[in-house]
Amino acid sequence: MDVSDRDSKCLVERPAEGFGLLIFGASGDLAKRKLLPSLYRLFRKGMLPERFFILGAARSGFNDISYREIISEVLSGNDARHVREFLRRIYYQPLSYDDTSSFRKLKERAGGLHRSLRTGGRMLFYFAVPPLLAEDIVLSVGGSGLARGKGWKRVVMEKPFGSDLQSARQLNRVLHRYFPEEAIFRIDHYLGKETVQDILLFRFANSIFEPIWNRNHIDHIQITAAETIGVGSRAGYYDRTGIVRDMFQNHLIQLLGIIALEPPSAFDSLRIREEKVKVFRALRKMSSFDVKDLAVFGQYRSGRMEGEKVPGYREERGIDPESTTPTFAAIRIFVDNWRWHGVPFYLRSGKRLKRRVTEVSIHFHDLPHSIFSHEIREGIEPNVLVFRIQPDEAIELRFQSKLPGSRLCLREVKMSFSYTDEASVDSLPDAYERVLLDCIRGDHLLFVGQEGVELAWEFFMPFIEYIEQDGSKGAVRFYSPGTWGPRAADGFIKKDGRSWWVR
Amino acid sequence: MDVSDRDSKCLVERPAEGFGLLIFGASGDLAKRKLLPSLYRLFRKGMLPERFFILGAARSGFNDISYREIISEVLSGNDARHVREFLRRIYYQPLSYDDTSSFRKLKERAGGLHRSLRTGGRMLFYFAVPPLLAEDIVLSVGGSGLARGKGWKRVVMEKPFGSDLQSARQLNRVLHRYFPEEAIFRIDHYLGKETVQDILLFRFANSIFEPIWNRNHIDHIQITAAETIGVGSRAGYYDRTGIVRDMFQNHLIQLLGIIALEPPSAFDSLRIREEKVKVFRALRKMSSFDVKDLAVFGQYRSGRMEGEKVPGYREERGIDPESTTPTFAAIRIFVDNWRWHGVPFYLRSGKRLKRRVTEVSIHFHDLPHSIFSHEIREGIEPNVLVFRIQPDEAIELRFQSKLPGSRLCLREVKMSFSYTDEASVDSLPDAYERVLLDCIRGDHLLFVGQEGVELAWEFFMPFIEYIEQDGSKGAVRFYSPGTWGPRAADGFIKKDGRSWWVR
Repeated sequence: MDVSDRDSKCLVERPAEGFGLLIFGASGDLAKRKLLPSLYRLFRKGMLPERFFILGAARSGFNDISYREIISEVLSGNDARHVREFLRRIYYQPLSYDDTSSFRKLKERAGGLHRSLRTGGRMLFYFAVPPLLAEDIVLSVGGSGLARGKGWKRVVMEKPFGSDLQSARQLNRVLHRYFPEEAIFRIDHYLGKETVQDILLFRFANSIFEPIWNRNHIDHIQITAAETIGVGSRAGYYDRTGIVRDMFQNHLIQLLGIIALEPPSAFDSLRIREEKVKVFRALRKMSSFDVKDLAVFGQYRSGRMEGEKVPGYREERGIDPESTTPTFAAIRIFVDNWRWHGVPFYLRSGKRLKRRVTEVSIHFHDLPHSIFSHEIREGIEPNVLVFRIQPDEAIELRFQSKLPGSRLCLREVKMSFSYTDEASVDSLPDAYERVLLDCIRGDHLLFVGQEGVELAWEFFMPFIEYIEQDGSKGAVRFYSPGTWGPRAADGFIKKDGRSWWVR
Repeated sequence: MDVSDRDSKCLVERPAEGFGLLIFGASGDLAKRKLLPSLYRLFRKGMLPERFFILGAARSGFNDISYREIISEVLSGNDARHVREFLRRIYYQPLSYDDTSSFRKLKERAGGLHRSLRTGGRMLFYFAVPPLLAEDIVLSVGGSGLARGKGWKRVVMEKPFGSDLQSARQLNRVLHRYFPEEAIFRIDHYLGKETVQDILLFRFANSIFEPIWNRNHIDHIQITAAETIGVGSRAGYYDRTGIVRDMFQNHLIQLLGIIALEPPSAFDSLRIREEKVKVFRALRKMSSFDVKDLAVFGQYRSGRMEGEKVPGYREERGIDPESTTPTFAAIRIFVDNWRWHGVPFYLRSGKRLKRRVTEVSIHFHDLPHSIFSHEIREGIEPNVLVFRIQPDEAIELRFQSKLPGSRLCLREVKMSFSYTDEASVDSLPDAYERVLLDCIRGDHLLFVGQEGVELAWEFFMPFIEYIEQDGSKGAVRFYSPGTWGPRAADGFIKKDGRSWWVR
């Protein structure tokens, strides 16, 4: 891949104003292992404003000094001067989540910091807490008046947003009592990845792909997100959640939205969100009766991966030994609008699969007529455009070309370019850096709106209900680790005359 | 570039039958330096049939032994055993081109070889002689009965085919007295190059390019064939010929034909030839009065290239010091049919230009609407698809992508794949090998038909007439070596709001 020597063209970066970041759950793993290190890297790169503070809040009885010590340990190995500078901006306030006066104290503390550090009252609330706690904390934040006053107030909600349609609606209602929709940032980490943003630029900064981006030229689309790991330390959470809630309702359907949306009039996060919502509204509705023909579910059994013995899902610590929670699903989805009429989207995700990969592949139609049919007996493979999101972010175009030599031979070639060819991996912002930066800037591009999150839950509820009803009656099939899920998943796409691209 | 591990799909190769090759002008440079070495390489690669012979004919008084000695010298450095095997199949017959009895003797010799070597009377006549001689030899071949009898008889005509419309028509008439059109192989060496063949496979073995291969998606097309060398040893010939006859009437217009043609119903050389002819019939006709607005002509003056002094065209040995023969031309052409209405084809070629390169570039339309217009002030560069024919054969697609990093920046990237990445250059057949092989097989794909060659002459005659009339009145402008031709060539495309891609 070559980069031309002409200048790249940049969207203007908005300068960030001063602000305070209030982290609920500051003593938890997410805050310590992910948020603070990401904030530190942003700080070191000069991407945070001059004036900011981080106020950690949690049940644990730390104070500023002891909390800074913990963070200092997490950041050990970094430049000591930079770390000192960073730690100076970190504060801690112990908090009882169910005590109103505790929230009042928190508000005073935050107000004091804003005044002394001249951060203008601008406040980002980060909910690094389980979803069940989130609702109560929102109510307390609202009740205490923390969400009012001078300067913007924004909320970052970790995924999952709710655990079903009803709880998501309830959480939205509570949030909207104190925060307008534009102040709410619902995280979907997949959307922090470079390639996902690149899909939008690829589609709308080039004139040659949009004309063929529809049912007339596309046969079908596949989205695969495969993991090799098992449920690991998330057992308790996962067993209540399953693959549909954990991957489909958020990541995969968001990817589908970005691939399928109509061109927005401007590259504006709210315009793009609107277009995604229009796609979600067009998802073909189904009942839990239809699900068995439209999906395959699986759960990994024990076996070997790369020579190592691995436990089955039911044998993992913290999992019900009779659990019917699916760790794999393949689902066929139709988008009922003019652009996508008749084009199936095959979504697939699972744990303990053959290799770790997330890819979107656009499969174009067969040649309408092969002028080579006289000479070549077999069919000519159709064009495929691939957006690989991990492990190595890249865009690839598969096409047919001539094999060099005197004989006229076709062979498949890939034109490709990879992001990692380009920039040192170190300089790419990680997902959390990106999320934090965008919240600070108020850029909604990578976050999910209320209507989008509810439509996604609505769409997947029949699948969830089907599993809960029939999971124990054979609807969830076992598969061996290191495979591509249950056999039925192959038959599922083969009966449509197609096959999985990632294999 | 990766080649997929699936099998490449090959057109079935027809087995070659035994044959005799009769080379007129066998003692000349073309025969000795090009034809015989190419034949040797085909022989060594096992691409010639078991039974064949080469019968050289020319005015020089060689015999089999002395001619083989000459060829043996040319092939020195190759495997001695292979060369001996090859030389055994070479014969020589002295010939007076204007003596009927001499042709009768030639016929007897050829007949004797066919009988003793059991090559079935199949005969390929190769005219490695100047165009003026060709006509007389064809008449003598015909008169002597060499073109009759058992087995196919084929003629290979070197370029240029005629020197204007009238002489081309005359040569065709003479040829057709003795040979049907399907027995005539008019060479255009550019058509022997891999990428040109690949253009056809690229267009018709992929479903995603053909839908955008028209006026709705393409803004314009450029074809550039630039040389750094001057007129060299071809001075006398070149001064009568000029760039329009030497490059445009054959190479460039053939490339245009391949880019512009409608999909043929089968990948068959005669079907493809038909489609090229349809393109040539659609070339917008013009008179020599129009030419000054549609073309720029130039002639190189003396100057420096890479630090070395090089003579001007008029100072080259063998060139008239007041010559107005153009060594550069840029011509704008329209193809008046539904597919190409309003899409200009800019053709450009010259000697002593900045670098040696032959490229076809397809320039797609600007974005219909930039959703990034709010953030990016400058225009976003349109997509360009490039077929590079030399020096490094490749296909490249220029498109816009996201620069990795937190800022949303566009940059131009190229997806590309190069043939030389792929195969060792040694194994690619050279242009003469390819030409010889295809004549032996009777495959017309890389050769020009009667109607095509006459239409091409017809189209370019107004340009040739204009230069001959007005060349001395400033119609041919001087340019410095190592530039991209006269300044006017830039203004010529700029007044259409475009600029040269190769620069």
